[in-house]
Amino acid sequence: MAELDMHDICAFVIEVAREAGGTIRSAKPSTSNTLSKKNTADIVTETDKAVEQHIHQRLQQRYPTFAFVGEESYKIGVEVTDEPTFIVDPIDGTSNFVHGFPAVCVSIGLVVKKRPVVGVVYNPFQEDLWSAVHGQGAFYSQHDGPRKALPIVSAPLGELNTACIGIEWGSDREGPNFDLNLKVFTTLARSRATGGHFVNSLRCLGSAAIAICLVAAGQQDAFWECGCWAWDVAAAWCILSEANGIMVDGHPGNWNPPIDNRRYLAVRPATDGQKEFVEKFWDVIGEDRSSYGPTP
Amino acid sequence: MAELDMHDICAFVIEVAREAGGTIRSAKPSTSNTLSKKNTADIVTETDKAVEQHIHQRLQQRYPTFAFVGEESYKIGVEVTDEPTFIVDPIDGTSNFVHGFPAVCVSIGLVVKKRPVVGVVYNPFQEDLWSAVHGQGAFYSQHDGPRKALPIVSAPLGELNTACIGIEWGSDREGPNFDLNLKVFTTLARSRATGGHFVNSLRCLGSAAIAICLVAAGQQDAFWECGCWAWDVAAAWCILSEANGIMVDGHPGNWNPPIDNRRYLAVRPATDGQKEFVEKFWDVIGEDRSSYGPTP
Repeated sequence: MAELDMHDICAFVIEVAREAGGTIRSAKPSTSNTLSKKNTADIVTETDKAVEQHIHQRLQQRYPTFAFVGEESYKIGVEVTDEPTFIVDPIDGTSNFVHGFPAVCVSIGLVVKKRPVVGVVYNPFQEDLWSAVHGQGAFYSQHDGPRKALPIVSAPLGELNTACIGIEWGSDREGPNFDLNLKVFTTLARSRATGGHFVNSLRCLGSAAIAICLVAAGQQDAFWECGCWAWDVAAAWCILSEANGIMVDGHPGNWNPPIDNRRYLAVRPATDGQKEFVEKFWDVIGEDRSSYGPTP
Repeated sequence: MAELDMHDICAFVIEVAREAGGTIRSAKPSTSNTLSKKNTADIVTETDKAVEQHIHQRLQQRYPTFAFVGEESYKIGVEVTDEPTFIVDPIDGTSNFVHGFPAVCVSIGLVVKKRPVVGVVYNPFQEDLWSAVHGQGAFYSQHDGPRKALPIVSAPLGELNTACIGIEWGSDREGPNFDLNLKVFTTLARSRATGGHFVNSLRCLGSAAIAICLVAAGQQDAFWECGCWAWDVAAAWCILSEANGIMVDGHPGNWNPPIDNRRYLAVRPATDGQKEFVEKFWDVIGEDRSSYGPTP
C-alpha cells in the first residue's frame, strides 16, 4: 500500500463522483421506467447502469490494475480479494431517485486487504460531499463550500432513549428477516413500561451511505441495516472510521465484520460509551438471526 | 381578506424565517440541555423558546391585529378563530435539532377563516425555502438560488406498491395510538402475499413540515401522521394546496379536515389518481381509530 498515493486517488474519485452526480441530476427518472430486480421494492433504472459504466471506465483508465465491484454489474459469487478494489454504488437510494426524494448519492470506496481506505459519498441534489482517506481524517463540504473535519459532534453516548437511530425497511418484506426488522424497530420505539427502549427518534432516509455519513458526522447516533451490500457501505465506512465512529456486525458478537457482512451497525464518534451502546443495541436483537444469501 | 396584501405578508414572513434560521444555525444544541414535555421523545430547548419569541415579536410589530399561536407558548384550550392567525413552529424537528440531523425547519403559516393562506418553511441547515400564497402558487429555492414553481413532479398516482410514503414514529409509544401506527406501518410495508401493500419505500425525516413540502413538490407520494399539531402542518399545508396536492384526514372519511385535526394525510399533486390513492390508504386503517386530546 505504500506505493499508492491515497490522497491523489481520493481527489480523482471526487472528480468522478461529481461527474456522475451531474448525470444523475440531469436525468428525468420516474417510477414508470424502472425495472424490478428481486421485487418491486428493489429497482434499477437506465441511469444507474449508465452512471456505473461511466465510473467504471474512468476508474479503470486511471487505475487499470485495480479490481472493480459495482452494484449493477455485480455477478453472484464474485468476492472481494485482498487486491485494491473499487466498490461502487452508482446511485445509492434508487427508490428516492425515481421519486425525486433528494436523499440520493454516488458512493465510491476503495478497499485494500478488504478494508476501506478511500471513501467518497456525493449527493448531487443537496450538493453534500463526504470524503476520507485512511489515516488522514474525514471531511464534509456543502455546495463547494469550505470542508469541515468530521465529526461535528462527539459527545458521550448515553442510553438508547436519548438516541436518534437510522433504520431501513429494505426490500425483504416477509419471512424471518422482515420479522426481525419489525421486532427491532418496535422494541427500539416502544415505551419502557411496555418492554421497549423508547429511543428518542427513528429516521429512515433510504440511503445507507448517506445515513452512515450522518453517523460519521455525529448527526445521528447510529444506523442499523441488515440486508444491504458492500457497495452500500464501503465508502461511508471509510468516512465513519476516519471520523472515529465504528462499524460492527448488525448482529451480536462481531466487532470486526468483513466488508461484505450484509448486516451492519454504525455507531457515531463519541468521547465515551461506544462499546456500551453497541452492547445495548445487540441486546435488542436477542437470539433471533436474519440470514442473507449472496443473491442480490 | 381583500384588504390583506398576501404577497407582502409572505415576503415579510420569509425575512423573519431567515432571521430565525440564522439563530438556529448558530445554536449549539445537545441532547444534554433539553427539557422533556410529555416524555423523553417530546422535547424542547431554550433555542425553540427564544426563536418563537423573536418570531412572535417581529410578526406582532408588523401585524398587531393578527392572532398568534406558537408551539412553545401554546395554552391548552386555545382555539384558532376565523381571524387572521399566525401559526408557528419555531423549530419543527427539535429531536433532529438536538442531534444535529439536518432535517430542521422554521414553519410559519397564516390562516384566515381557519384556512392556510400564506406558508413559509425554511430549513437553515440545507438552506431550503418553500413558500406559497393562496391563489399565487407554491415555490421552492435552495441556497438563495432561483425559485422553482411546485410541483416538480406531477405524474399520475398509481398503486401503493410504487409509492414512497413519509411516516413518523412520534412520541406516543404505547397504547392504541401506537398500536394503530404500527399496524399501518407494517401493513404498508408487508408483502402482498402476507396481507400487506408492499409500498416501494417508507421514509421518516422527523419534520412533518419538511415532509409535507416534499409531498407538495411531488418528491414523495404521501405523508401520514397522526398526533401532530396545527403548527406542524399550517405552513406546509398552504404550500401543498398551492402545488395542487391535497390534505385529508389521516383517518377515513373527512376530505376537508380542520387545521387542528391532529391526524393528517398529505397526497402529492397528480394528473390522476389522488382520490383513489386516498381511498386505498384509508382502507389500510380499517376500523381502528387513534385519539388525540388537546394536551401537548
